[in-house]
Amino acid sequence: MIDDGSLEAGSRLPSSHSLAQNLKISRTSVVAAYEELWSCGYIDTRQSAYSYVRDINTNPSFSMNDEILSDEKLNSSRIDFLKKEKSLYYNSSCIDMMSLFPDERTYPLKEMKKSYKTVLEKYGEKLFTYADKQGYMPLRTYLSQRLRTIGIKADAQDILITNGTQNPLDLIMRMFKKPQQRIAFESPTYANFLSLLKLHGYEYFEIPLKNKRFDYKTFKNEVLKNNNFSFIYLIPDFQNPTGLTMSKNERNNILQVCKENDIFIVEDAYEEEMKYLGKIPLPLKSYDSTGNVIYCGSFSKILFPGIRISWIAAKKSIIEKLTYIKRLSDLSSNLINQVAIYEFCKNGYYEKHINQMHRIYKKRMAFFINHIEKHVQPGKIELIVPEGGYTLWISIIKSRFSADEVYALFVNKGLMVSPGKIFFHDDSDSLSFRLSVARLNEEELEAAAKILSEVLEDV
Amino acid sequence: MIDDGSLEAGSRLPSSHSLAQNLKISRTSVVAAYEELWSCGYIDTRQSAYSYVRDINTNPSFSMNDEILSDEKLNSSRIDFLKKEKSLYYNSSCIDMMSLFPDERTYPLKEMKKSYKTVLEKYGEKLFTYADKQGYMPLRTYLSQRLRTIGIKADAQDILITNGTQNPLDLIMRMFKKPQQRIAFESPTYANFLSLLKLHGYEYFEIPLKNKRFDYKTFKNEVLKNNNFSFIYLIPDFQNPTGLTMSKNERNNILQVCKENDIFIVEDAYEEEMKYLGKIPLPLKSYDSTGNVIYCGSFSKILFPGIRISWIAAKKSIIEKLTYIKRLSDLSSNLINQVAIYEFCKNGYYEKHINQMHRIYKKRMAFFINHIEKHVQPGKIELIVPEGGYTLWISIIKSRFSADEVYALFVNKGLMVSPGKIFFHDDSDSLSFRLSVARLNEEELEAAAKILSEVLEDV
Repeated sequence: MIDDGSLEAGSRLPSSHSLAQNLKISRTSVVAAYEELWSCGYIDTRQSAYSYVRDINTNPSFSMNDEILSDEKLNSSRIDFLKKEKSLYYNSSCIDMMSLFPDERTYPLKEMKKSYKTVLEKYGEKLFTYADKQGYMPLRTYLSQRLRTIGIKADAQDILITNGTQNPLDLIMRMFKKPQQRIAFESPTYANFLSLLKLHGYEYFEIPLKNKRFDYKTFKNEVLKNNNFSFIYLIPDFQNPTGLTMSKNERNNILQVCKENDIFIVEDAYEEEMKYLGKIPLPLKSYDSTGNVIYCGSFSKILFPGIRISWIAAKKSIIEKLTYIKRLSDLSSNLINQVAIYEFCKNGYYEKHINQMHRIYKKRMAFFINHIEKHVQPGKIELIVPEGGYTLWISIIKSRFSADEVYALFVNKGLMVSPGKIFFHDDSDSLSFRLSVARLNEEELEAAAKILSEVLEDV
Repeated sequence: MIDDGSLEAGSRLPSSHSLAQNLKISRTSVVAAYEELWSCGYIDTRQSAYSYVRDINTNPSFSMNDEILSDEKLNSSRIDFLKKEKSLYYNSSCIDMMSLFPDERTYPLKEMKKSYKTVLEKYGEKLFTYADKQGYMPLRTYLSQRLRTIGIKADAQDILITNGTQNPLDLIMRMFKKPQQRIAFESPTYANFLSLLKLHGYEYFEIPLKNKRFDYKTFKNEVLKNNNFSFIYLIPDFQNPTGLTMSKNERNNILQVCKENDIFIVEDAYEEEMKYLGKIPLPLKSYDSTGNVIYCGSFSKILFPGIRISWIAAKKSIIEKLTYIKRLSDLSSNLINQVAIYEFCKNGYYEKHINQMHRIYKKRMAFFINHIEKHVQPGKIELIVPEGGYTLWISIIKSRFSADEVYALFVNKGLMVSPGKIFFHDDSDSLSFRLSVARLNEEELEAAAKILSEVLEDV
């Protein structure tokens, strides 16, 4: 009766005595029932007094006034809902060239299940207590050894395990946050980096894409004019979204500028392990002589995103500060996942999986490029062919269609790509699109290439 | 030779041709070895040119200059290392009345292992992809139903799953952050709340403990003087560290003040499920008529801390903002743990475990109180006896010893308690201590009580 509203808030319930008489049940039963109603929050009750129906209204439909109140109380100026939300563009009935995480069909599921089961049996309750705030030590030691193979010297104490690949960017922005400090980054760049930048309210400087290369010299010039940079954010390998890889020369120049001007470099190496086409320059961190490079690595793009384990490698003083901030934001990361992935790595499954991924994606990328390269026409349609990773960047130089119209054409024909504008700070309506081969096998890639070529013809 | 320094950075390596001759091996082998040295970051190499030993110095011992640089570049004024770190006081050879998480001997390990194994078999690769950014829907639905039993009406859409119990406090502080906004809280309060407050640089107002109750009237008076409060942070049940439970009257008064003055309430219900001594008032959230109460619940203190799953229940507009901030800080929480704990709950293991915990801790707490109550002497030694939960608050009214000296006495005799000062914003050196029965069985509690009584005699 309370639930359906026939007993209204504030109504007095009958005394236990009278209700017991009316219903011909014992008074003890009525008292027990009232007790249960109380414990479920339906009624208010006091010793030797009547009970009343409680006024519960925790889910009010919000009045305008309420919305104004919350806007006033909250720091909502920086909270920019739904804008740039990938979900706006997502359509599950299309072929997916939007998502940038590995195809589920490649997951090393058997080995991962085995790893979880092994550690559950081996460690039991130890898995369910707090983890080391800096991350599970054996996993950090393993990562330290792996980093050595790409020229990075970082001990276990120089590594912080984080909750996925986004988490380091947030922690780093929190650490550097000071009024009037700027961040430089390549434009276009990782969409969620841009959202985070806005959330933090940072000033910024964009390094533009020119003639299929980033124009890093503009950054150097800007530094000479006004060096109030906290850090520069770079994705040197298979840049997101363009797929570009920084040359060794570009790496040296950036390192030099940053060294001379005391600017930190945040190196996002989210696809470090996807060098399936062979030799590309070593990470910036491997050339770091000042300790000013903060390196971010991840399992998300080579293994699976759901494990939520990534890492930061940096000099000890930086790791200490980041660990302090992370500890106050969540005390520690989940332990069982760290132990399970360490078990997985330790048994050689990780190395084996990387080799397999290289074989798969080398083939997929070559197959796709082969199918679309004939549609590239200098001055009309340009394509950046990557040296590894998952993404390609395609630009329509001239068209009577707007980017949104081209995007609609793609979706109508059953292909989902990432609209270029989500990778620009100002959402600029460029006629570029990011294509990801991550989630498609060759058959699907062939179908995708067919749609792509049709749309390119049309526009 | 590079590793031990006998080949210095910058040294030219012999040509592959001459090295092959000297070592009497094939040139292909030398080229392959150089390739491997390159890929491990030992040497720099270019096509048809000599190779050189790379200058790697990523782990420099930091010069003073380097430290100044980082202090200048970082927002370190608010980063207050090691101060208040629990670890300073931790001594693993002592009986532990410091830690505030359940005894490992109580963990429902068998059921949890079963839950993990079941979901690994049942869902496979689905467990290793991104989770819903707001949290696994079936788990949110389950929590929504459970909240109903304590009078809280929150749909699945009004719930955000977070990374443990600390995470909500950080997300909420980030959401409200605006210059000149204040936060009110009970003093003493949860130590990591205070550290977080400093990290965010919030202004604050403390509601002091007086005569074993918090003096909430001072807050009301302060609001009338200057209402620039974002929110008030309250732990209504078994307050940390005092163990005090807010009366129904106090709850009503606070709700009224906050309603009239548009102040949000952050209700930390971290021990909601530890009501083993019976009836205590319902959560503030259950009386919330304006939608201004933000309720934080957790599995950490009844199940185990390592699962890192807690939740926020609040009105939709608040949950949306918090979800947005959380998404930008880590994209999504780990999925497998959410699915496993839902499996655990769904099978009734959670309810069963709560009942068992109530039986265990009702006995433990009664046993401990019985052993120490005789040492309480009004005006000399005062004790707050809790109505549930894990903690007791003991105060020495007068002593020639300082708090640090008393703490040293405890440790010397083999008992570790939490020094009161870590729960005060200004580290004030009160002669109070938090005692936790969480990790001790009756035998251990008896030994702890013996040491406690000896120290109380001495001081």
